[in-house]
Parts: sequence; C-alpha cells; structure tokens
Amino acid sequence: MRIAIASDHAAFDLKAELRDYLIEQGHDVADLGPESADRVDYPDYGYKLASMVADGTAEYGVALCGSGIGISVAVNRNPSCRCALVSEPLSAALAREHNNANCIAMGARLTGIDMAKACLDAFLSTPFGGGRHGPRVEKLSNPSIHGSA
Amino acid sequence: MRIAIASDHAAFDLKAELRDYLIEQGHDVADLGPESADRVDYPDYGYKLASMVADGTAEYGVALCGSGIGISVAVNRNPSCRCALVSEPLSAALAREHNNANCIAMGARLTGIDMAKACLDAFLSTPFGGGRHGPRVEKLSNPSIHGSA
Repeated sequence: MRIAIASDHAAFDLKAELRDYLIEQGHDVADLGPESADRVDYPDYGYKLASMVADGTAEYGVALCGSGIGISVAVNRNPSCRCALVSEPLSAALAREHNNANCIAMGARLTGIDMAKACLDAFLSTPFGGGRHGPRVEKLSNPSIHGSA
Repeated sequence: MRIAIASDHAAFDLKAELRDYLIEQGHDVADLGPESADRVDYPDYGYKLASMVADGTAEYGVALCGSGIGISVAVNRNPSCRCALVSEPLSAALAREHNNANCIAMGARLTGIDMAKACLDAFLSTPFGGGRHGPRVEKLSNPSIHGSA
C-alpha cells in the first residue's frame, strides 16, 4: 500500500519513527518532508500531502504537526481528502468505518509514539462500513453544492 | 459573543447541554439544529455552521457529531473556517493560541459532558498568540495559491 507522510518541524522526529514503522510493515512510503527540523509552515506540507492523496498517487496520508490541528485543517481544504485528527485508536478506527477517512492527523507534542503507532494500526486495518455512511461521505466531496465556501 | 452551534443526531443531546451552558455564561447562541434526534447527515449541519462563521454572523462555531470527525471535515471545507477537533482542554487552548481556530469540534460518543465544557472554556478564554503563527494561519485561508484542491 502506498502511504504518504508529511509533517512540520515539531513533528519531524515522529514522522521519521512512523515512516520507519510503516516501511517495516511492508508499506510503500512517500516521505514528503520536511527533511530537517528547521522551522516550516504546516500548511505547505498539508497541501502537498493532500494533493498526493487527491490524485491517487497515495492511497492514504499521514499528517503530523505539534498538535495535529493545523495540518488537519490544511489537508481538509482539499475536497478529495477526509482527514481525521486523532489521539487514540477508537477514533482512528471510527474515521475509517464511518467517514472513509483517507488521511489521519496526529499531534507530536500530545500523542506518544506507541499511541501513535496504535492509531496507525487501527486506521489501516479498519474497512469503511458503507451503508448509511456512504451518502454522508459523498457530501464531503461536494461542499459547493451544499452551501459551503 | 455570538456563537453558533450545530450537530447531527448522535450529538443532539450534547448540543442542547452545551447550548444551555453557553447561554448561562451570557453568550448569544444560535442553535442551527437539528431540532430532534432524527437521523440527519452531518455535512449539512457542518456546512451551515461554516457559512455562518465565514460571513461573520457568528464569531465562533461549535460543531458536534458522534466522533466529531465527520463534522470537523465538513466545516474545514470552508477556507474561512479553522475547525479543531478536540477531546481535552489543552488541544482546545492550542487551537486558539497557535491556529486562531474559529470553530471547535467534539465527539458526543467519545467526550463526556464535563470534559466538553472544559474544552469550550479553554477555547473561549484563550487568545490567538500571533507572531510566527500569523503567516501559517493566513495560508489556511488561501489553499488555492498553495497547491491544494
């Protein structure tokens, strides 16, 4: 499975650890940066990740910043992305089951490495539930016809 | 302060409790629905809330669904909204301090009423930190010039 991962400086170390964890599991991982812990702006990396998921180059995206909030907002600007900010595995599983989320965001300063790995595991192992959730997810792809923006 | 609040059916009771809590604190609250616990689609209510915050009718938005994930994605489709999905007060405060968030999302099936109130308190009492955070927040308002969508 092709998974893209991106962060800001605050989550640079977490990004490296989760990237290696995913590679160990046999995933094809695209590390979109940053390449050092120098200060960067999280929207730049969130938009880059979102584009890669939106065009299908990556099936899933992992978005990391200090709290996870900023980069999750950035990724969700792209109507093709459904990015869930999580800090525990139940939310990570629900994001897939109910929302067919294709991106997961976490905060490096708030969520520890083992919890982050458990969230990733839950996210990647949970299928979309379909059914009544389908039309709701579909509406997330077409905000313009529902009065947004 | 004018605050808009919206939910889906899963968070109908939490919406009523938080609406009353905000009114008790002297806020002017617009309850955007739903008006019963009958099944609805969270994007419809997320988009409605986002529009009200985007046009300035409400200063802040409170978005609630079962996990908080779906409605937070919907609200963040609007480039004028910065919606933080939170489950504890530290994230709620960081959302304001670092991201100048104007919307807060919570999950009624995951976050209890007292924790939700503590999140609201932290959100409403924390000012934006400005400084280095300013240009990053600005980028969240202009996704199109940064390669998204």
